[in-house]
Amino acid sequence: MAVYTNVSDDDVTALLTRYDIGEVTALKGIAEGVENSNYLLRTTTGTFILTLYEKRVDPDDLPFFLGLMDHLSAKGIICPTPVHDRSGQALTRLCRRPAAITSFLDGMGVTKIKPVHCRKLGEALATLHEAAADFRLTRRNTLNPDGWGDLFEKCRARADEVQTGLAAEIDAGLDRLVRAWPDDLPRGVIHADLFPDNVFFMPGPTLSGLIDFYFACNDLLAYDIAICLNAWCFEQDGAFNITKSQQLIAGYRSVRPLDTAELTALPLLAAGASLRFLLTRLYDWLNTPQDALVTPKDPHEYLSKLRFHCKARHCRDYGVM
Amino acid sequence: MAVYTNVSDDDVTALLTRYDIGEVTALKGIAEGVENSNYLLRTTTGTFILTLYEKRVDPDDLPFFLGLMDHLSAKGIICPTPVHDRSGQALTRLCRRPAAITSFLDGMGVTKIKPVHCRKLGEALATLHEAAADFRLTRRNTLNPDGWGDLFEKCRARADEVQTGLAAEIDAGLDRLVRAWPDDLPRGVIHADLFPDNVFFMPGPTLSGLIDFYFACNDLLAYDIAICLNAWCFEQDGAFNITKSQQLIAGYRSVRPLDTAELTALPLLAAGASLRFLLTRLYDWLNTPQDALVTPKDPHEYLSKLRFHCKARHCRDYGVM
Repeated sequence: MAVYTNVSDDDVTALLTRYDIGEVTALKGIAEGVENSNYLLRTTTGTFILTLYEKRVDPDDLPFFLGLMDHLSAKGIICPTPVHDRSGQALTRLCRRPAAITSFLDGMGVTKIKPVHCRKLGEALATLHEAAADFRLTRRNTLNPDGWGDLFEKCRARADEVQTGLAAEIDAGLDRLVRAWPDDLPRGVIHADLFPDNVFFMPGPTLSGLIDFYFACNDLLAYDIAICLNAWCFEQDGAFNITKSQQLIAGYRSVRPLDTAELTALPLLAAGASLRFLLTRLYDWLNTPQDALVTPKDPHEYLSKLRFHCKARHCRDYGVM
Repeated sequence: MAVYTNVSDDDVTALLTRYDIGEVTALKGIAEGVENSNYLLRTTTGTFILTLYEKRVDPDDLPFFLGLMDHLSAKGIICPTPVHDRSGQALTRLCRRPAAITSFLDGMGVTKIKPVHCRKLGEALATLHEAAADFRLTRRNTLNPDGWGDLFEKCRARADEVQTGLAAEIDAGLDRLVRAWPDDLPRGVIHADLFPDNVFFMPGPTLSGLIDFYFACNDLLAYDIAICLNAWCFEQDGAFNITKSQQLIAGYRSVRPLDTAELTALPLLAAGASLRFLLTRLYDWLNTPQDALVTPKDPHEYLSKLRFHCKARHCRDYGVM
């Protein structure tokens, strides 16, 4: 959570001359998002988010991300809607970086997750998958099983610094998961990073919007559920809350049915999702400089989740009857 | 610029039950202020700033700071206005810290300072001094000449790490300034930290508000001008811009006359203001941990300003005729 690039009053004033959203009245750097610099932008016509894409985002992916947000917004999904300039472009440049202005979403990430939040999340995730079904651009998931091996090779030698035996345990899990990974499940655009801070709620609880589409890609739709099971259904002490997962999956199925193959694959997909976040956290843990603006997340949490899913054998273990 | 304390959705929802400003709709940590955690708070009735006071602010000073903002707002000065809860209190507690909600001010700090900005600043500073004249609380300036010696003792041994000969140069300046420091100039409440990021402008340029009153105290009114001369009238390359200082002082005098003693003391007061910021920057430079969220500011800038003012002999050197 950091602002990496300072945008001045002159920068933003010059930028806004190309848009039809009025004149700037306030600009505040906000502590949101790990990869990019985000500003809350107030103008004479409304409130917006100004995002500067920093080095971890591939500029070639931006038309996919911004196009997806445009597509989803047009279908009624509440997500940041790119603001287009007078020439029709959503993608611009500011302070020598790619940048975009999007709509501001009300709502807040929820800290104390209840089963009802998981139900709403499941409904929203399925609605997102259906709304994105006819989006014409595609983006490969660089963090899918094909990519895990390469990522692990970059941290294998030092993995045991985090925990003795970790390299061997990842090796075994990686081998099993890559061999068993399904390729015949329904595919489409997935969010791929729908953690609680990317899902806004208003009191009620009403789900008020989804943000941060910068990991979105084409992959197995049920893999998105697996990512959410990990991010939403474990308690602080590491215990899996089957009521939450039951609600998440039931919410999803109330919008988009899951076929038998998808349900059967859940333990495997959830183990894969754990391994994916274990590997990226391990890499960041070993490679983040001490003086970085962002503190890397502890990889242990996802090792524990990986072990849980490796023991699961049936979708009943996730509350699916 | 950092958010030190995480405020959750539940924290802010519970807090707002004690106020009459509606229900929370959004809360974003903002990168503003170095001492405290600041959030932009949107509710069903408007936009506010929620501040949590971190360890560098003395809780005993908060009634002065919040009372001053109340007093100034009532007098028509555009500054953050504390929001009082239903029992009339502006000061509250959140996440085990003192906290307050204030109004949100539109406008932005100006990056490319022009003489006209200095003129507006001078007018606003004098207006602030006059508006605060009948504020009943007082606060001693802990960073006045009485405090400089103690502060220097904490960094004397390592001062030459920053520049060879720095300890001896500060010693000489300190001795001269403390001896010559005036005690018979007009006194009152000063802002004491009116740097460009604490003065908001709208295009025009129109000065739209003053923020960050957390160094405000009772001291010589002309010392506040001296602080502003340092913060607003030097160029990036270190050159003093006499047109800017002329405009700043003329703007001030158009609202509140300066007497001969105040004008005569300007070089001395400006040297003192340089020494005060040189000392706090030197202390922070030597004592900020490598992994701190905030990067300390370079003390050299204020050493160069100190040298400039030590050579000045007359208020004509600041454009005063």
